[in-house]
Amino acid sequence: DFVRALEEVKPAFGVSDEELSLCTRNGIFKYSPDVETILTDSQLFVEQVRNSPRTPLVSILFHGPSGSGKTAIAATIAMASEFPFIKLISPESMLGFNEQAKMAHITRIFNDAYKSPFSIVVVDELERLLDWVGIGPRFSNLVLQTLVVLLRRNPPKNRRLLVLATTSQRSILEQLDMINCFDDEVYVPPIKDLPSVEHVLSELALFDTLEDVKRCMGLLKSFGLDGSFNVGIKKLIMVAEMARQDDDKVGKFAQLLSQHASSHATAMHI
Amino acid sequence: DFVRALEEVKPAFGVSDEELSLCTRNGIFKYSPDVETILTDSQLFVEQVRNSPRTPLVSILFHGPSGSGKTAIAATIAMASEFPFIKLISPESMLGFNEQAKMAHITRIFNDAYKSPFSIVVVDELERLLDWVGIGPRFSNLVLQTLVVLLRRNPPKNRRLLVLATTSQRSILEQLDMINCFDDEVYVPPIKDLPSVEHVLSELALFDTLEDVKRCMGLLKSFGLDGSFNVGIKKLIMVAEMARQDDDKVGKFAQLLSQHASSHATAMHI
Amino acid sequence: DFVRALEEVKPAFGVSDEELSLCTRNGIFKYSPDVETILTDSQLFVEQVRNSPRTPLVSILFHGPSGSGKTAIAATIAMASEFPFIKLISPESMLGFNEQAKMAHITRIFNDAYKSPFSIVVVDELERLLDWVGIGPRFSNLVLQTLVVLLRRNPPKNRRLLVLATTSQRSILEQLDMINCFDDEVYVPPIKDLPSVEHVLSELALFDTLEDVKRCMGLLKSFGLDGSFNVGIKKLIMVAEMARQDDDKVGKFAQLLSQHASSHATAMHI
Amino acid sequence: DFVRALEEVKPAFGVSDEELSLCTRNGIFKYSPDVETILTDSQLFVEQVRNSPRTPLVSILFHGPSGSGKTAIAATIAMASEFPFIKLISPESMLGFNEQAKMAHITRIFNDAYKSPFSIVVVDELERLLDWVGIGPRFSNLVLQTLVVLLRRNPPKNRRLLVLATTSQRSILEQLDMINCFDDEVYVPPIKDLPSVEHVLSELALFDTLEDVKRCMGLLKSFGLDGSFNVGIKKLIMVAEMARQDDDKVGKFAQLLSQHASSHATAMHI
Amino acid sequence: DFVRALEEVKPAFGVSDEELSLCTRNGIFKYSPDVETILTDSQLFVEQVRNSPRTPLVSILFHGPSGSGKTAIAATIAMASEFPFIKLISPESMLGFNEQAKMAHITRIFNDAYKSPFSIVVVDELERLLDWVGIGPRFSNLVLQTLVVLLRRNPPKNRRLLVLATTSQRSILEQLDMINCFDDEVYVPPIKDLPSVEHVLSELALFDTLEDVKRCMGLLKSFGLDGSFNVGIKKLIMVAEMARQDDDKVGKFAQLLSQHASSHATAMHI
Amino acid sequence: DFVRALEEVKPAFGVSDEELSLCTRNGIFKYSPDVETILTDSQLFVEQVRNSPRTPLVSILFHGPSGSGKTAIAATIAMASEFPFIKLISPESMLGFNEQAKMAHITRIFNDAYKSPFSIVVVDELERLLDWVGIGPRFSNLVLQTLVVLLRRNPPKNRRLLVLATTSQRSILEQLDMINCFDDEVYVPPIKDLPSVEHVLSELALFDTLEDVKRCMGLLKSFGLDGSFNVGIKKLIMVAEMARQDDDKVGKFAQLLSQHASSHATAMHI
Ligand SMILES: Nc1ncnc2c1ncn2[C@@H]1O[C@H](COP(=O)(O)OP(=O)(O)OP(=O)(O)O)[C@@H](O)[C@H]1O
Ligand SMILES: Nc1ncnc2c1ncn2[C@@H]1O[C@H](COP(=O)(O)OP(=O)(O)OP(=O)(O)O)[C@@H](O)[C@H]1O
Ligand SMILES: Nc1ncnc2c1ncn2[C@@H]1O[C@H](COP(=O)(O)OP(=O)(O)OP(=O)(O)O)[C@@H](O)[C@H]1O
Ligand SMILES: Nc1ncnc2c1ncn2[C@@H]1O[C@H](COP(=O)(O)OP(=O)(O)OP(=O)(O)O)[C@@H](O)[C@H]1O
Ligand SMILES: Nc1ncnc2c1ncn2[C@@H]1O[C@H](COP(=O)(O)OP(=O)(O)OP(=O)(O)O)[C@@H](O)[C@H]1O
Ligand SMILES: Nc1ncnc2c1ncn2[C@@H]1O[C@H](COP(=O)(O)OP(=O)(O)OP(=O)(O)O)[C@@H](O)[C@H]1O
Ligand SMILES: [Mg+2]
Ligand SMILES: [Mg+2]
Ligand SMILES: [Mg+2]
Ligand SMILES: [Mg+2]
Ligand SMILES: [Mg+2]
Ligand SMILES: [Mg+2]
Repeated sequence: DFVRALEEVKPAFGVSDEELSLCTRNGIFKYSPDVETILTDSQLFVEQVRNSPRTPLVSILFHGPSGSGKTAIAATIAMASEFPFIKLISPESMLGFNEQAKMAHITRIFNDAYKSPFSIVVVDELERLLDWVGIGPRFSNLVLQTLVVLLRRNPPKNRRLLVLATTSQRSILEQLDMINCFDDEVYVPPIKDLPSVEHVLSELALFDTLEDVKRCMGLLKSFGLDGSFNVGIKKLIMVAEMARQDDDKVGKFAQLLSQHASSHATAMHI
Repeated sequence: DFVRALEEVKPAFGVSDEELSLCTRNGIFKYSPDVETILTDSQLFVEQVRNSPRTPLVSILFHGPSGSGKTAIAATIAMASEFPFIKLISPESMLGFNEQAKMAHITRIFNDAYKSPFSIVVVDELERLLDWVGIGPRFSNLVLQTLVVLLRRNPPKNRRLLVLATTSQRSILEQLDMINCFDDEVYVPPIKDLPSVEHVLSELALFDTLEDVKRCMGLLKSFGLDGSFNVGIKKLIMVAEMARQDDDKVGKFAQLLSQHASSHATAMHI
Repeated sequence: DFVRALEEVKPAFGVSDEELSLCTRNGIFKYSPDVETILTDSQLFVEQVRNSPRTPLVSILFHGPSGSGKTAIAATIAMASEFPFIKLISPESMLGFNEQAKMAHITRIFNDAYKSPFSIVVVDELERLLDWVGIGPRFSNLVLQTLVVLLRRNPPKNRRLLVLATTSQRSILEQLDMINCFDDEVYVPPIKDLPSVEHVLSELALFDTLEDVKRCMGLLKSFGLDGSFNVGIKKLIMVAEMARQDDDKVGKFAQLLSQHASSHATAMHI
Repeated sequence: DFVRALEEVKPAFGVSDEELSLCTRNGIFKYSPDVETILTDSQLFVEQVRNSPRTPLVSILFHGPSGSGKTAIAATIAMASEFPFIKLISPESMLGFNEQAKMAHITRIFNDAYKSPFSIVVVDELERLLDWVGIGPRFSNLVLQTLVVLLRRNPPKNRRLLVLATTSQRSILEQLDMINCFDDEVYVPPIKDLPSVEHVLSELALFDTLEDVKRCMGLLKSFGLDGSFNVGIKKLIMVAEMARQDDDKVGKFAQLLSQHASSHATAMHI
Repeated sequence: DFVRALEEVKPAFGVSDEELSLCTRNGIFKYSPDVETILTDSQLFVEQVRNSPRTPLVSILFHGPSGSGKTAIAATIAMASEFPFIKLISPESMLGFNEQAKMAHITRIFNDAYKSPFSIVVVDELERLLDWVGIGPRFSNLVLQTLVVLLRRNPPKNRRLLVLATTSQRSILEQLDMINCFDDEVYVPPIKDLPSVEHVLSELALFDTLEDVKRCMGLLKSFGLDGSFNVGIKKLIMVAEMARQDDDKVGKFAQLLSQHASSHATAMHI
Repeated sequence: DFVRALEEVKPAFGVSDEELSLCTRNGIFKYSPDVETILTDSQLFVEQVRNSPRTPLVSILFHGPSGSGKTAIAATIAMASEFPFIKLISPESMLGFNEQAKMAHITRIFNDAYKSPFSIVVVDELERLLDWVGIGPRFSNLVLQTLVVLLRRNPPKNRRLLVLATTSQRSILEQLDMINCFDDEVYVPPIKDLPSVEHVLSELALFDTLEDVKRCMGLLKSFGLDGSFNVGIKKLIMVAEMARQDDDKVGKFAQLLSQHASSHATAMHI
């Protein structure tokens, strides 16, 4: 029944609302002006696909460090487009597939996309889809070649497609000569300053008093975190929830965050 | 039905008009004298195949940087020949094929070509056909050996064949010792100067007034783009259509082009 | 019947008490304050999973040198949680499985975990599960990718999962870029001082008189073992039992321990 | 029917006249004394096989740069022997065969050869038969080992065999330790001087007047081609036919030849 | 019937007396005090398994240079234990098995061992079992991983197992990180001095007179063999039997031994 | 019928006279005292197997440069033993076998050998049996491991076996750690001086008059061949037969020999 479980795939056509909304479980916090800019800029690609017959296929790469919010942002833009066909291709959805099955699954979704006049395909975690591992290095060349062909294939007449891909390992795609399969790139940065952290903390309602918030910020500064650090929004939420279990939430949060936030210099590997 | 989809191959014989015309969706703009020269020079190979019984097989390699228009030019020459058999071999047409299926497909098209007295086979994106990836490096030696044998095989009596191949990675073919399977090479250069850009912009009717055009050229110069840059015609069209969605088309176009056009020195990797 | 033996898998659902208690055959000796700290700190992760809806999946890595007690500690924490679903994934339980069977087995246990509202999966000896060997290096990329996806997969609604993994080769996981699949890490240190050794010896009742214990400690000091050595609790028990067979238990124990305990400097490869 | 096409192999026994004569489509021009010497010297091997019972198997390797005429010469000598069994083993004749099929095909031809008292097997383009590619490097060890054993195998009583092999990559055979499977070697040089070129031009009747010939030779000298260049007879014929399509045959020929003829120093890779 | 021969495996359960006694065909000569020490020390491991419930699995590695007598000693200890289950796992017993069959065979023997309360498994020539070859290097990772898991697996309740393994390539096991799967190691040294040689010669009754023995020792010294050489007991017996065929037994023996005995410095690769 | 041809294996048991005598087609010329010494020394191994119950398996390696006569000598010794079981294992006899079939064939011959009280197995061209090629390097580890186990396996009671193996690439066997599978080695040197050449020439009756012989020797000396060269007896015979076809036998022989005989320094790769 493992095999049966693998086969219990949902009907292929349409919009995969459920999966996409799971990707934004904790919402989109506007912790910095960057967030707004990324969202509005990305809408332009939706418009281009809607309007330009000369470029019926547009493909965009969202990249940035681990946990910076790439998947949540791509999912949000896709859902906001209200295109009749929106699909997510993710490593989870192909768990247990072999190379051939992955190729077939990916190809089918792109083919289905061309049955609707306007479509969006979100291709999440490119390096995982390729089963990339730095040792060797090893990866599925079959999946790679399939993606490269699909990202460059001419759509049929009167069909338009926007591809939104994500990766936290842009340098791998460079090694694989995959970067220039994309028409443009969008960088999703990590959280870098204390005001953003404070914003998120208030959204999460971790502390009960403003006093606690202030004390926490003081502690973080004393730990050396002021302006030159890096932490993904995803990790920040995890650290806050860990601290929530402790009697000393303020101290635990400050300790955990300074442990998990990397210094600006070493973390900049865009 | 993925398998069925793969099997829904069109009847093999004849001319593949539809696929070839998709390759020239945006036409051929005469943005520089080079364009004309390449087209007229290439006609000579068509003549040689038509006339010389001593060289019944002639194979030509079109190479140049990404998006410089190689495929569109090869397709145009092929369609202009009016030979009774013209076929396109492309990565797209073999999506999902394994090595053996690719070998069989390619071989069949070359064999079919010898059923007509005069034939042209366009072999598009050689490095993709081989599933090349620089890491390893990996590629299909079966497809490589098949192509090498087919590019050197003596045609039967009274049969003539012109092969037009394209690649944006000539150096890979050199590593694979494939270059001297070709009888001659044609270099398709990128766009390198502002007058060519201006020509293309007017063909695309991006701006509404000559004023805008002038302002745009001024901006580009101020961004350092005057004579020593490189941009493929394909990318130029994409950038123009992106700018078209923006309120400030002039500014957006100038910004995007200066971002995507590489400086002359680094881009010269013929 | 080898095949039949492999198939005689126990019913998948529930708690694997028997296997887990085999992992703590010799109990947990409190030979140092570290032991207590590790146990109480780790309980917090159990609480987080029980309480926080924002982080429905928490994964922790227990690492430390060979035989330091990682498996016994992870098993102890899991059993103490009293969650309705507790399972052990270990190399032994997949002996004779091929890559595909391992993938299916691991996936099924994670899928089963989501049938219970609160679950714990103990993933023992990660590097063995991957069939890692430093020469090559070789490992199962299929098992690796499966684990990475499962450690990052969003749980369905109202389902919570704690993953407790162990490794004695943290550096391998670093090479495999697997470290940041974990939300936090716990270091399980080896025994490093004579008082701890003395504590264990008394638990094992190796010597008959306090006189013998003292003599033994004296011998160990004379062999250079005072403060700057390293020995896993597992090895210490083995060495004690070897010595027990000898007429001169004191001398044999001191000799064997000084042979098997590595000096602090070389053994520190956390 | 691809498979059927592969199976439509001609009856195995006898002489493969048709294939061999295709190899000499443009005849053998006596453009230099070397040509004569090679032909008469090679006849001695035919005599040795006919006469000496002590050496019932003699194997010769024809090597030289690309297009120097190796295949045409080997075919000519084989056909001139008038032995009852003459067969060609070439990459073309095994297109689409896998390693095992190649091994079986080659072995069968050698076995068939021993059914006739005197036989010749022409083994064309050794490096292609092995599917050699310099990257890796990769090749078929199965085909290699099969050839090595067949080139050294003791013929049965009263059976004599001459093997004529060709390669344009002698250094590959050296790397593969294949050179000392051959009893002797024959070097087939490229064309190196203008008188030879002139001889070939007159055979091809490219120019209409002696005036044109003279002008052409003058041009070539002015382009630096006098004595120290290299061009294969095969390429020379191709270049002449390309020039024939141009209005200015003289200028085009001189331009193309100076482009395609390599300077003596770099081309000497015997 | 090759396959049938492979299947004619003896009933799995019990003691493999015949195979084990073949390993000691020439007996155990007490040519040095080391021999006695190794035998009595090793008995302690038998006692530990018999007596200690805390360490139900003990695994020992016998290592030393080629032919030093490792297999004969391990077999002798196993047979002397009089445990109800004693089995030999050797390369010979798995000749013609593929990786899977080897894994199954080894696993079955370990599983069978747990059907008896006290068991010994002799695992002979570890590096051969893994099909190790230094070039590459290559080895069976499946067999390696199987052995590693079996050497570390917790025995079921009331079952005890002693594993005696041998290798002449300890450094390979180090490269494979296999050394710390063993609880202890025993070094079996080669013969290093003339008195030991003399002891063996008298056991073998090679020479007829004491005179000959003396002359031989003199010769060996004159050849430089006094104290600083290395020769396995196995090779020494072979050399003696070779000399026995010669008319000049004394001279031949001295010549052969000095040829085959390596100097101490180079041979020390424990 | 290729497959059928492979299956037409002769009945396995007994003596393979025909194949062995093909290996000595041109007899054994006593061109130097070395030849006699090698033959008589090697007989001692036959005697050891006949007489010593302590060493029921003796394995000898014949090595030396290409064509020095190794196979002919091993075959001669085997045939002279008059043992009831004498078999040849050679690359030719396994042409077209895959790894498994080779393993089975070799194993069967060794197993059959133990059905006779005294047996000889000639294992010809070890490096070919392994499909060795220096690039990679590549070889059949399955065949290698099979041979290693068979060369070390204890014979059953009352069975004796002599293994005579040959190689022209002793250094490969060293890389493969195969050398110490052999109990002794015999070096078969090439021809190194003119008197030996003269001896062979007279056996072959190449020249009609003593005058010619003398002239030839003079020529060879003038070409620098006096004492410091190397040529295998096999090549010498080939060269003589080539020269026999020429009008000027003396000149041709001298020219060919000096071409094919390597200088002493470079050829010494024992
Ligand atoms: N401004 C924001 N942008 C993105 N995500 C946000 C934002 N605010 C809150 N979130 C929440 O943060 C989480 C971001 O996680 P997400 O999986 O999108 O990150 P990621 O960059 O894709 O991580 P990974 O590198 O692991 O793939 C989500 O749960 C999302 O709901
Ligand atoms: N002068 C021109 N030459 C070629 N293409 C032109 C020209 N003018 C306009 N085009 C248009 O530009 C596009 C060129 O794209 P094309 O796919 O041929 O480029 P390419 O070099 O093959 O790209 P790639 O390197 O990605 O394979 C086509 O849409 C074509 O219609
Ligand atoms: N404080 C302790 N912590 C852990 N184990 C203990 C402790 N005290 C006694 N033990 C016993 O020590 C043994 C520890 O072995 P365990 O297998 O857990 O070590 P490990 O670190 O997982 O070893 P490995 O690195 O080989 O996987 C168990 O038998 C356990 O019962
Ligand atoms: N003297 C000559 N020697 C050989 N070929 C000649 C000669 N004169 C004319 N030719 C013609 O030149 C061509 C030589 O091509 P051929 O295929 O034999 O060259 P090759 O060396 O085998 O090439 P490649 O290196 O590509 O295998 C043939 O068409 C042959 O008819
Ligand atoms: N003291 C001894 N110790 C071991 N073997 C001895 C001794 N005295 C005599 N022998 C004999 O010497 C031979 C030792 O060979 P054995 O195969 O045990 O060596 P080994 O070290 O296992 O060799 P290898 O390294 O090839 O596996 C046996 O025939 C054994 O009977
Ligand atoms: N003294 C001799 N020793 C060996 N062979 C001789 C001698 N005299 C004549 N011959 C002949 O020389 C030839 C030797 O060839 P053989 O195949 O035995 O050489 P080889 O060393 O095995 O060659 P290779 O290295 O290619 O395997 C045989 O034909 C044999 O009859
Ligand atoms: Mg993501
Ligand atoms: Mg193209
Ligand atoms: Mg453990
Ligand atoms: Mg050729
Ligand atoms: Mg042994
Ligand atoms: Mg030989």
